[in-house]
Amino acid sequence: MIDELSALRRIEERFHKASKDVELGIGDDAAAVRFDSDKLVLSTTDSQVEDVHFMKSLITPCELARKAVAVSVSDIGAMGGVSKFILASVGFSEREDEEFLEQVISGFINSEQEFGVELIGGNLSSSNKLFIDITVLGEVEPELMVKRSGANPGDLIYATGTLGDSALGLKILHNGLKDRNNYLVNRHFHPIPRLELGRELALKRIATSMIDISDGLLLDLQRITVQQGIGAKIELMKLPISKEYAKFIGQFSQNTFELALSGGEDYELLFTSHEDRQRDIQVISKNLNIEITEIGCITKDRSIEVLNADGEALSLQNRGFVHFNN
Amino acid sequence: MIDELSALRRIEERFHKASKDVELGIGDDAAAVRFDSDKLVLSTTDSQVEDVHFMKSLITPCELARKAVAVSVSDIGAMGGVSKFILASVGFSEREDEEFLEQVISGFINSEQEFGVELIGGNLSSSNKLFIDITVLGEVEPELMVKRSGANPGDLIYATGTLGDSALGLKILHNGLKDRNNYLVNRHFHPIPRLELGRELALKRIATSMIDISDGLLLDLQRITVQQGIGAKIELMKLPISKEYAKFIGQFSQNTFELALSGGEDYELLFTSHEDRQRDIQVISKNLNIEITEIGCITKDRSIEVLNADGEALSLQNRGFVHFNN
Repeated sequence: MIDELSALRRIEERFHKASKDVELGIGDDAAAVRFDSDKLVLSTTDSQVEDVHFMKSLITPCELARKAVAVSVSDIGAMGGVSKFILASVGFSEREDEEFLEQVISGFINSEQEFGVELIGGNLSSSNKLFIDITVLGEVEPELMVKRSGANPGDLIYATGTLGDSALGLKILHNGLKDRNNYLVNRHFHPIPRLELGRELALKRIATSMIDISDGLLLDLQRITVQQGIGAKIELMKLPISKEYAKFIGQFSQNTFELALSGGEDYELLFTSHEDRQRDIQVISKNLNIEITEIGCITKDRSIEVLNADGEALSLQNRGFVHFNN
Repeated sequence: MIDELSALRRIEERFHKASKDVELGIGDDAAAVRFDSDKLVLSTTDSQVEDVHFMKSLITPCELARKAVAVSVSDIGAMGGVSKFILASVGFSEREDEEFLEQVISGFINSEQEFGVELIGGNLSSSNKLFIDITVLGEVEPELMVKRSGANPGDLIYATGTLGDSALGLKILHNGLKDRNNYLVNRHFHPIPRLELGRELALKRIATSMIDISDGLLLDLQRITVQQGIGAKIELMKLPISKEYAKFIGQFSQNTFELALSGGEDYELLFTSHEDRQRDIQVISKNLNIEITEIGCITKDRSIEVLNADGEALSLQNRGFVHFNN
């Protein structure tokens, strides 16, 4: 059981340092901050709810707090923006204690350093299940902002890093292989949002559209095509998968690419770019030491086609789930 | 059971209109908005959690959504600022259906009109209990912002409206007098944040400190005194109570002012002001037709004294709870 007043006091103690952009941080009715006057203010919010997004027995409070921030700043990165401030709304159940609170605070402090943000406010409440809701405020130059819309037929489609790792890590966990040192399991608990890369793609005006992959490649791909009345063609054999994914996927699916196509929570970037920017993308990939893989192209048809090694289209179902016929 | 994708589609349909300050609203990774370049950006977040802050059997989804926004914009008003945008993070349990969602949306739309805000983003997730977490973004001129700190010994203390109504309304409900038309019950479900009044007090530089009363007069009074190393003297007989409060309080307490002192959720403003501004306060009160009552003064002592009709100090306990000896 966490006492609200002592918790608030502890939080104010731990987060009292504020940068020059923070006129007023934690401890008043609202926080007051400054943004660059020629930039747009970006805002996004995301929740982690116990037994929906995580199980308390599998993740530490510190990891949980960090992950809640990571998935939210990821959205700002996918706009080409820079995250600046966070607000944390936390619902503690009576099963959490002061030690748990300390670990959550540590997770937020780690996040501040890792993601270059400052915690400026929040809210504590009771809840029968633990939840952490993070709002991120960031900024971006209006001319550099990368939206989900903006892709054109002929644009190439790229994915960063490797796909399906987080979903496969979760399957490994749920099947009792609770080896927390497993690479895939770690990818699930400790996602690395591609903040620097997203920013570079925006600064160099390379991405015509961009999104972070939170719900699986196919579903998130639809978010940059459907409303624009365009489609995409993806080549299965091009999808970037990790060695560890290749090693473990056979235990869970007959179809090597199933989770790379539809597994969520990788927080890799999916973006489109004119084909004449391939060279620039290679340079960024090399400079930041992040794999960036061309996986297909934008088409005029209002559909998503996934081609197998023989160039045959797989039949796809709604919501990112793929039906493999073979 | 609410389908997430169809819910998101419905929300995008209902909130597609955006003002010129919204470069990008609902439907991308993050919202992008403009603020006046010479103002500070204010942000605050607040949660309403089922069976903690509300019972679903007692409040309609529309009222709940409106109240969630009302209590959050109230914080911006208490800074002397103007609320501009909201983000709503909602956790729906499997007990909520599409009709419920429609009512929640209606509540948000009503709030947009009533409070002059725009819903620009949010998040839907599953949860075993319903929750609504609202983040408000607003703005204020740096030189006009009213903090919790700033009160000086000798300043007079004022409260707006009447106190204790919401808490008494809740008691009436919990005792089975479920008359939703009761004035006090309505004060609980339909709080009116004093946005215009908070703004006027800031514009005229009348308030030296200000807070909205969410946790009860005594507790919120401590928030403008304790950290400043000052105290306050409150006169019980001056506390503004409504006719309805006076009529019903006897059924629940032997002490007429108990809930006026420590009942929460009135969302009235508590502020301090130099004594030479009394006339200005009367003018604002008259212009806006809102009662503003002087209830005591700030003292040098680091304590809160509440004096009864005989000028005797009551003994107070922690956290706003009052122990009445007589």
